Amino acid sequence: MSRTQLLKQIFNAHSVAIIGASRRMGHPSHLALMGLIESGFDGKIYPINPSAREIDGIKAYPNIKSVHEPVDLAFIAVQAAKVIPILRECAEKGVKGAIINSAGFKELGTKEGTEREEEVSRIASSTGMGIIGPNCVGFHRSSMSTMPGLPQPAEIRAILKEKGNVGMTSQSGWFCGFYIHRCALRGVRFSTAISSGNEADFTTIDFLEYLGEDEDTEVITMYLEGVKDGKNFLKVSKAITPEKPIIIWKVGLTKAGSRAAFSHTGSLAGKEGIYGAVFRQAHVVQAFSSKELIDLTVAFSLCKKPKGNRVGIISSPGGFAVATADACERSGLNVPRLSEKTCKELKKFLPQYSSTLNPVDLTMTAIENPQFYPECMKILDSDDKIDSMIVVTGAGGIYDEFIEKSVREIEKPVMVVLTPYWTVETEPSASAKAGIPTYAYPEEAARSLAALTRYAMVRS
Amino acid sequence: MSRTQLLKQIFNAHSVAIIGASRRMGHPSHLALMGLIESGFDGKIYPINPSAREIDGIKAYPNIKSVHEPVDLAFIAVQAAKVIPILRECAEKGVKGAIINSAGFKELGTKEGTEREEEVSRIASSTGMGIIGPNCVGFHRSSMSTMPGLPQPAEIRAILKEKGNVGMTSQSGWFCGFYIHRCALRGVRFSTAISSGNEADFTTIDFLEYLGEDEDTEVITMYLEGVKDGKNFLKVSKAITPEKPIIIWKVGLTKAGSRAAFSHTGSLAGKEGIYGAVFRQAHVVQAFSSKELIDLTVAFSLCKKPKGNRVGIISSPGGFAVATADACERSGLNVPRLSEKTCKELKKFLPQYSSTLNPVDLTMTAIENPQFYPECMKILDSDDKIDSMIVVTGAGGIYDEFIEKSVREIEKPVMVVLTPYWTVETEPSASAKAGIPTYAYPEEAARSLAALTRYAMVRS
Repeated sequence: MSRTQLLKQIFNAHSVAIIGASRRMGHPSHLALMGLIESGFDGKIYPINPSAREIDGIKAYPNIKSVHEPVDLAFIAVQAAKVIPILRECAEKGVKGAIINSAGFKELGTKEGTEREEEVSRIASSTGMGIIGPNCVGFHRSSMSTMPGLPQPAEIRAILKEKGNVGMTSQSGWFCGFYIHRCALRGVRFSTAISSGNEADFTTIDFLEYLGEDEDTEVITMYLEGVKDGKNFLKVSKAITPEKPIIIWKVGLTKAGSRAAFSHTGSLAGKEGIYGAVFRQAHVVQAFSSKELIDLTVAFSLCKKPKGNRVGIISSPGGFAVATADACERSGLNVPRLSEKTCKELKKFLPQYSSTLNPVDLTMTAIENPQFYPECMKILDSDDKIDSMIVVTGAGGIYDEFIEKSVREIEKPVMVVLTPYWTVETEPSASAKAGIPTYAYPEEAARSLAALTRYAMVRS
Repeated sequence: MSRTQLLKQIFNAHSVAIIGASRRMGHPSHLALMGLIESGFDGKIYPINPSAREIDGIKAYPNIKSVHEPVDLAFIAVQAAKVIPILRECAEKGVKGAIINSAGFKELGTKEGTEREEEVSRIASSTGMGIIGPNCVGFHRSSMSTMPGLPQPAEIRAILKEKGNVGMTSQSGWFCGFYIHRCALRGVRFSTAISSGNEADFTTIDFLEYLGEDEDTEVITMYLEGVKDGKNFLKVSKAITPEKPIIIWKVGLTKAGSRAAFSHTGSLAGKEGIYGAVFRQAHVVQAFSSKELIDLTVAFSLCKKPKGNRVGIISSPGGFAVATADACERSGLNVPRLSEKTCKELKKFLPQYSSTLNPVDLTMTAIENPQFYPECMKILDSDDKIDSMIVVTGAGGIYDEFIEKSVREIEKPVMVVLTPYWTVETEPSASAKAGIPTYAYPEEAARSLAALTRYAMVRS
């Protein structure tokens, strides 16, 4: 069975054992259990705990052997020293895959930790059991998630349960969960998001190959500390990027960052220049912060691809009209004057002191005239000097659904900057829920649109 | 009377007329009225409207002459063509200052608009009445605000009513309000924030001089499209920066941005290189986006000044430990290894697989052990290899007050990165309300700390 096939089986497990299951709120095993339940996992769950008869109302077992049904996947959250014997038990039981949540392996930087991790690798290769981790939190899919199921608005939980087009891998478990939630707030849906940890068995490259072949995945994103086999990484990436964009936030590129990456997941993080060269060769889109990775994910997964780099800007706040123009030009986009015909049509209904030069500055009269937005968008949609639009709203939620409808009706790609005073990123806006790319600041929208435009123009 | 004295009188007005007062929700005059009422202005308000007997329960007058008490300040929101005769009436009545909200002046780019604006300047200089605008929304002070009083959480309203140390000027009226609210969410309090618009009379330089002399103002920030007298701007800035930092977001620096700035407030925006050189000469801190201006305001107004550039990082999320180290080094800060003594003390209570090298990676066990934060901060506080700290929390609001208390107890400057999944920037966190500098992403904290450190080291 290929690695990709094995992963497919793991991601579609029908039964999961939580080994080291604890009732303690905040304990990783408890968070994993909550994650499974909240994601609506419809298979069997077996909490394993030698001294509990049930956990959260689910029958518990003293060890994996006492479960008499088949177990597809084990989530292991015990002390590092106990992991190896448990892995052996799992293999004997015929478990297909294991997620090792426990820390205390190579990242310790000790002989003991390194040897322990090598033993994990040997068990995987000698038994054929697929192992994710150690030092990870497993994976998130719309149908089955082992990620910490912390309390969150119902609107976010609903988005997390919808199947999407983004596949993600992260060597940091915490970041994987953080990223999923921040992306969901912006309306992004996932195919599979994987926390890969120390990668004693399955590596980033295995997950990359899987996501490359996965039909649901259209965009691949990544938090990367380091890869063990650079040549193979380049080869696999190169094969994928003609079909699907890969967006990577590579961390540990400075001296202190590299030291931190080693003590985090035992990764050798490598030099900035080397990784930059590899990414350029493979046509990987590089993000330089977590925020940028999230913003790019929104652009690549939710926005249509622009046919060229000429942006039309429509703004009600005048200050952000100027800022958006600056940000677009700084990002390499072009903000041309609109055609005379377009200006004339706009002047028919906009106030005298508005501007139609591009940016189209609606002025704050748009607060009283929200129909300005759809009317302007429609006119710019038929101006052949414009390939995409950034629309900046000055007011709050009342325009949200208004804009949502008009974005659907026009053909060109549109990004929306939502700038109400008191709601930003905590609840998904109506636009975000509807799958419209939304941003809180013009510079973030401009940078993301520029990256998407560059990608679209190279790939067209 | 000096310009600064005249401004002081305007900012401490005891009576305000709203000329062109409308009942329509969303109309600028109505927003100004709401702003005045919500800020708790305890002087007299006179709505002026020829066809209303009262507005929002306040007695209205047909014109300014029919008000028989003295009027210190007039907020004018009528059609541009009607502004000049109204200004003359105000001057005859002895009004000290006027805010012209109306647009339709130089920013039109027409002969008519330019002449109208020149007439405003002439009225100001011939009558001695001080005029703010046209095309502006006035000013915000804790005791008296003409800024749109949109509905917002009570916690923000409470912060807006507290007197603070930040003085701000903005040529964009909308941005002025947006900035105040976003800053208040982060715990920033204001002395005076001024929307200066087209600057027919009072200019950015007048406001800068005022804020330079104002005892309450410790930090000056600015949204700038352009200044009319570059030499004077340089002279005034140079005189202020040895005492108070000036942070400027200059927009309109690209071709499209400059075109947009002209049609926005009639400003000639100028070249990137020229402004950059002026800012460097004057030791002005330059921000390159609205977000950066906000982040720098938080740093300069709320954070202690570091004595050197060596940062200690404490993080519970491992991924953000790496990212914070990267971000600090990229921003020019130093992330040194901690002293052996410090490592030993930390190892006493942190789990074996945590890291004490700097970043101090608490691992996600901090979720169950929130006391790790104050304990680690205290130990780093006495390590003389460290000048400042960035603390990254992995969990939500439950740690917020915990961290607030510990930040107060330590001597070194601390910035906090709050990374809960579902609350980011919509409600002020307990830490923000308490005046602790908080950030949503490590890169933003690192960049802001680096700017503050550079400033502190030059000025010490």
